[in-house]
Amino acid sequence: MDVIQLFKYLINSKSETPDDGGILNFVEDYLEGFKAVRIDVEDVKNLFIYKKFGDGEHLCFAGHVDVVPAGDGWDTNPYEAVEKDGFIYGRGTQDMKSGVAAFTQAVKEAKNFQGTLSLILTSDEEGEATAGTVKALEYLQQHNMLPDACVVAEPTCEDKFGDAIKVGRRGSINGYLTVKGKQGHAAYPEKAINPIHQIAQVLGDMAGVDLDEGDEFFAPSKFVITDIRSGMQVTNVTPNELQMMFNVRNNTKTTQKEVREFVAKHLQGLDYELRLTQGSYPFKTDTDTKLVKKIDEAIKQVTCKEPKHSTAGGTSDARFIAPLGVDVIEFGVRNDTIHSTNERTTKKEVEDLYRVFSRLIENWNK
Amino acid sequence: MDVIQLFKYLINSKSETPDDGGILNFVEDYLEGFKAVRIDVEDVKNLFIYKKFGDGEHLCFAGHVDVVPAGDGWDTNPYEAVEKDGFIYGRGTQDMKSGVAAFTQAVKEAKNFQGTLSLILTSDEEGEATAGTVKALEYLQQHNMLPDACVVAEPTCEDKFGDAIKVGRRGSINGYLTVKGKQGHAAYPEKAINPIHQIAQVLGDMAGVDLDEGDEFFAPSKFVITDIRSGMQVTNVTPNELQMMFNVRNNTKTTQKEVREFVAKHLQGLDYELRLTQGSYPFKTDTDTKLVKKIDEAIKQVTCKEPKHSTAGGTSDARFIAPLGVDVIEFGVRNDTIHSTNERTTKKEVEDLYRVFSRLIENWNK
Ligand SMILES: [Zn+2]
Ligand SMILES: [Zn+2]
Repeated sequence: MDVIQLFKYLINSKSETPDDGGILNFVEDYLEGFKAVRIDVEDVKNLFIYKKFGDGEHLCFAGHVDVVPAGDGWDTNPYEAVEKDGFIYGRGTQDMKSGVAAFTQAVKEAKNFQGTLSLILTSDEEGEATAGTVKALEYLQQHNMLPDACVVAEPTCEDKFGDAIKVGRRGSINGYLTVKGKQGHAAYPEKAINPIHQIAQVLGDMAGVDLDEGDEFFAPSKFVITDIRSGMQVTNVTPNELQMMFNVRNNTKTTQKEVREFVAKHLQGLDYELRLTQGSYPFKTDTDTKLVKKIDEAIKQVTCKEPKHSTAGGTSDARFIAPLGVDVIEFGVRNDTIHSTNERTTKKEVEDLYRVFSRLIENWNK
Repeated sequence: MDVIQLFKYLINSKSETPDDGGILNFVEDYLEGFKAVRIDVEDVKNLFIYKKFGDGEHLCFAGHVDVVPAGDGWDTNPYEAVEKDGFIYGRGTQDMKSGVAAFTQAVKEAKNFQGTLSLILTSDEEGEATAGTVKALEYLQQHNMLPDACVVAEPTCEDKFGDAIKVGRRGSINGYLTVKGKQGHAAYPEKAINPIHQIAQVLGDMAGVDLDEGDEFFAPSKFVITDIRSGMQVTNVTPNELQMMFNVRNNTKTTQKEVREFVAKHLQGLDYELRLTQGSYPFKTDTDTKLVKKIDEAIKQVTCKEPKHSTAGGTSDARFIAPLGVDVIEFGVRNDTIHSTNERTTKKEVEDLYRVFSRLIENWNK
């Protein structure tokens, strides 16, 4: 099997979260001579598979084999790899069976690597992601097998293959705010404390405001209000309480502490309660780490491009890996059709991605 | 029967809206020699009863015989007039069977009035008020019998009997606002139009703001927000739409037009819809009308006080009478226990109220 045959095999294996479509068993067989550890959690399938070629660093490739549901409106069968007009169509072609095919093939063909090569595969990334990569990482921590560096093969390219890698991601802080007033009759506002009127005085200074100025890698951490509700849906009574929800996609300059201080500054004098939760923490892999240098080099060798170092976009499992002290980057094909109908990639991109990963492995110890 | 006996009889007649407790039939009998017209609408009882003593003006007394439910926690039986510590206790003692007793007795004993005296009584003021005084007034309009002047005997006094009459009431405008945005992901606020962020920029200039400066009789018309809601109660999606409700207790300087312009000024550039409804219109009876002069005079004769001319407080049926071109004032006993447990008034106030109304009738043609 070459990388394209492998890729098509993966596309043809329907694997909506948390179903792995049998892919993990297939990879176990496909990577002959590798040691496989299954870390399944109920319906979720997780595989850590590795080979120690010799002493040296541990380089890992991580990815998810699950896909979001295809939905209606496709021109082809989403669970069949269809070549058409220079593209290969199918659910998961970009996100991220191209990546899984590319690194599985590259690792399979690796020779004389001075260290350990491994894959972490999960069937729970598009879902809650609570039983997937997180659980595999717990296993690795317990067994002292965390990698030194990790490539998550999520689709990262924008206009052309090779134009971007991700060296970090923003985190996400959720806020749940309650402002307490005193209910009253609309005819006698002076006898009530109207929490809508209270928040009205400061909302303009909070909504959409940047909590930091960002930096060369990160956009500013912005205060985004997602929900506000207060009142009894009548016009004659003013409410007792106001509820507000917000989200801050935070970079490394803003933590829960700064968010709490921002709210406190604006709501000074008001009777309120604030609860914060954090879905993920921001991370940033330094540009001068070996991993970033080596992937840049491999991309340049294959595509003649110098990829931009981006931190934009939503979350990926890289958010779980980075906090453990592992250098992480993301690199994969273009991402213009992820999660949409007629998701597609090109044969060339899958082949080039495989070549980049092969070069990365080859060059790692040079 | 004297006025106190009549008053106690009314208190003992339980008449929770829309029940009249048999009071309207009783009044028909009690006012011998008067002509009675019943304008009942389903469960609601309405009575117009009048006597033409001779040519001249038509002076009317209006009131409701219904009361709000007693509720729990009374020290006495709320549907029994109980004299205790100088007070008479019972549901409706202030609001407004004292008024009904006083004017019924005064009208019954009137002699040589040069014109027409009448009562409008309803059992639907504390409820929806859609089948009560409004219906009686329709009848009077149709039969060309609208009064020249009308006293609504709602309790108006504050600290001492005789200290206040009402010469007007604020109106009430309700607003229902929808601001339309474009739903989006919290991680990419720049791709969405967040209606919470949009309204946030102007809410501080709207909430609790006075739409006019008021005048010597009226407080300013204030923009009071009673409800706001937007979002799907999640932190990762920004909403498509925001709903807001507000109320303006308006004086004669502010109408729906000004409210609409106020919203338009602040929401310029936003995609929104505004619906306004008006529960009642403001009214103001000029201080130099005969009615105001004559009631002031009668109050002064009985109490040696010059009542303040107030427009404060909630709505009463006067809001339906004034727009028909009838001079209207409200005058009644103190109002410190209306709608509460242990509602009470004093014997003296009921007697004095009866005396004031008697003087008003006596003095009317002088
Ligand atoms: Zn993905
Ligand atoms: Zn009343």
